[in-house]
Amino acid sequence: MSRLAPLSGFPEWTPAERLVELHVIDRLREVFELHGFGQIETRAVEPLERLGGEAEASKEVYVLTRRGGETAEFGLHFDLTVPFARYVEERQGHLTFPFRRYQIQKVWRGERPQEGRFREFYQADIDVVARENLPGHLEAEVAVVMARALQSLDLPPARMRMNDRRLVEGFYRGVGVTEVAGALRSVDKLGKIGPEGVAKELATQGVAESAADAILHLARIRSADSSFKEAVLDLWETTPTQSDDEAQRLLGEGLAALGLLVETVNAAVPGTAEADLSIARGLDYYTGAVYETTLEGHEDLGSICSGGRYDSLVAGGGFPGVGMSIGVSRLVSRLVSRGMLVATRSVPSAVVVAVMDEETRGASQAIADRLRARGIACEVSPSAAKFGKQIQYADRRGIPFVWFPSADGDGEVKDIRSGEQVPADADAWNPPAEDLKPRIVRG
Amino acid sequence: MSRLAPLSGFPEWTPAERLVELHVIDRLREVFELHGFGQIETRAVEPLERLGGEAEASKEVYVLTRRGGETAEFGLHFDLTVPFARYVEERQGHLTFPFRRYQIQKVWRGERPQEGRFREFYQADIDVVARENLPGHLEAEVAVVMARALQSLDLPPARMRMNDRRLVEGFYRGVGVTEVAGALRSVDKLGKIGPEGVAKELATQGVAESAADAILHLARIRSADSSFKEAVLDLWETTPTQSDDEAQRLLGEGLAALGLLVETVNAAVPGTAEADLSIARGLDYYTGAVYETTLEGHEDLGSICSGGRYDSLVAGGGFPGVGMSIGVSRLVSRLVSRGMLVATRSVPSAVVVAVMDEETRGASQAIADRLRARGIACEVSPSAAKFGKQIQYADRRGIPFVWFPSADGDGEVKDIRSGEQVPADADAWNPPAEDLKPRIVRG
Repeated sequence: MSRLAPLSGFPEWTPAERLVELHVIDRLREVFELHGFGQIETRAVEPLERLGGEAEASKEVYVLTRRGGETAEFGLHFDLTVPFARYVEERQGHLTFPFRRYQIQKVWRGERPQEGRFREFYQADIDVVARENLPGHLEAEVAVVMARALQSLDLPPARMRMNDRRLVEGFYRGVGVTEVAGALRSVDKLGKIGPEGVAKELATQGVAESAADAILHLARIRSADSSFKEAVLDLWETTPTQSDDEAQRLLGEGLAALGLLVETVNAAVPGTAEADLSIARGLDYYTGAVYETTLEGHEDLGSICSGGRYDSLVAGGGFPGVGMSIGVSRLVSRLVSRGMLVATRSVPSAVVVAVMDEETRGASQAIADRLRARGIACEVSPSAAKFGKQIQYADRRGIPFVWFPSADGDGEVKDIRSGEQVPADADAWNPPAEDLKPRIVRG
Repeated sequence: MSRLAPLSGFPEWTPAERLVELHVIDRLREVFELHGFGQIETRAVEPLERLGGEAEASKEVYVLTRRGGETAEFGLHFDLTVPFARYVEERQGHLTFPFRRYQIQKVWRGERPQEGRFREFYQADIDVVARENLPGHLEAEVAVVMARALQSLDLPPARMRMNDRRLVEGFYRGVGVTEVAGALRSVDKLGKIGPEGVAKELATQGVAESAADAILHLARIRSADSSFKEAVLDLWETTPTQSDDEAQRLLGEGLAALGLLVETVNAAVPGTAEADLSIARGLDYYTGAVYETTLEGHEDLGSICSGGRYDSLVAGGGFPGVGMSIGVSRLVSRLVSRGMLVATRSVPSAVVVAVMDEETRGASQAIADRLRARGIACEVSPSAAKFGKQIQYADRRGIPFVWFPSADGDGEVKDIRSGEQVPADADAWNPPAEDLKPRIVRG
């Protein structure tokens, strides 16, 4: 058969690497649930008309046809927001709002693969959506949950940079920008095309040079507390602005909200949050807080956890919410390729129960079952080879213990690392806690 | 937006139903790991040329094209065996054999949806594959692991029916069948088309009437111990057979293996296994034990756990193994639709921490965090509404406890079912064990 080479953009891990990914997924699940988020899972496919929209990813949808069939039936989802919106719309009468949910699933994008960008990858999303009004404090809560989730993984520190759409919109409108969404999309490219590039794009959109200057100046403001407010107000006062009450109101609301957000998140998870007024996010969709997150020393990976507040989860309007999404595969890929987290062994077994001869395999099975009954994962040696071979079987898998049954009792257990061998009772013996299961440790 | 109706064949669960599915998946994972099976996960797609083959499902492959792209790129896998075979072939130099793995993932088949048959569904597979020789005792071990996995779910008893391909092939050849695979495929339809239907098909294949009679007679033999052997040998002796040493040898080997298999499995998990000589399984692929499993009282669901032993996992030959697969979605769908297993609540939170007023939200958050630090999932009330409203928030979600902070201390916690309210310390209070997490119980 052809095509044995790995498919670019479709990552697959070794058993030991998969343990790292599972560890990440299990930890996220645990932290999300401790904060009252319940898991749902949506189907992989959506009707094609639902997979359109403004997102870049909508151009990269994988369309499904049945073999031999001719008409396209559905597409694979490219994120977890589109299916979540449909799930909420479909079941609104049966859900309790505010609805707190998390989802950890694969999504697919037919984009050009490159480091950290895959065609098939896991995302982990949390959202809280309300039926009518979404309290502002949930913007902080969602960020705190994500910060704690990342913290639970024992990674380099995560830096969560935040901005507020009202602040940006008020400011942009105040300096005379009429197409705020277009200007935002340009500012979103700041990291890629630099200030000159952004200024050029803004000029094409008819933004005056003085306004573009102010916008770029705004994007340089950042602080880990509320002090950014003063910088913004200083800039606002020295910039020729139009007398627009609405702009003023938005700016004021955004400043207050962002200040509170940064301080609340830093109080809960010190050193995490920073107001960064360059954060734009591509999507029109957001209406309040927006977030991006980088890992210290791994800024080249881009944002590993992003999101924001929106007024309408569903296209028809309604269901305001706030959510964030971790790029799990992007993160795991880095952890694995750099050996930042590794599994202490690649198999679940803590013990291999040796077999003296095929006639007494049943006795070895019985010892294994007594260990399993107490939560100790083990295997029975597949062959009754010489004990040296059976020890080798364990050794090649990183299994720390070999149990040697004896004709008249439970026999002895050997730590094959130290060579120490002691008589043992299969109803009482325990491996040291750190050997019970494969653990994920810093590499 | 159109198409809000659920897509037929793509099941999606409510949050409470998803808890049942997660429970099933978590239990399977636990039992598989206790028996030394490690988890891998493969990508969802395979090159189309790998998704051919004899399986019915190969006609139902979903083919992927990128939106706007023209050539088909890959297809979604329709089982977990095809990707596992490719994984082993690709990584054979880096895996340790015999390789024990499990996989719990979704698969896709574009077949006509009906009850218990989906277009997107979870399978849970375990396999052990060797590089050269696969010891026969693994045929029993895999069945025992699956029987225990099912047992851990607290379902009606599972009945695992087993046959052996060598036995069948020896017998069929002995009575003069030249196309054993074709005859097997007909016998596989016994449940659907009845003995007359099978006889008719066998006749078209040129099988003599006396041979067809013997084949149908063989298919009626079953026993929960080794006594089937005698019945087979009786039939063999009263049937005109051709003197074929090879047929005789296969029959003998199969009889011995199947007898040992049934007895070993029943010794480990009493009341589970039955030799049933009508079990054929559609695929040519199997060369030793074959298994099917039904749930008592739910035989209409069909087999929920099937598999067998094979000589070659990969198309080019090599990697003999034995494996079984649980149809997780088929099973969960039944559990959910009949209310056989239900979640005690639909959200993870055990406690809602009330908020007296927005100024003291921080104090409520702090209490919640102290509970979380000890593994107690909780939420802080989204609004500082009247306490009656906050109790209602908990009640509508089935959350058993509401914590009322006080101005000068931790305050009190109320069991909203009994109304009992007691002073409590957030560093010490625990809910009763049965309230800590949502539990899955018999409905």
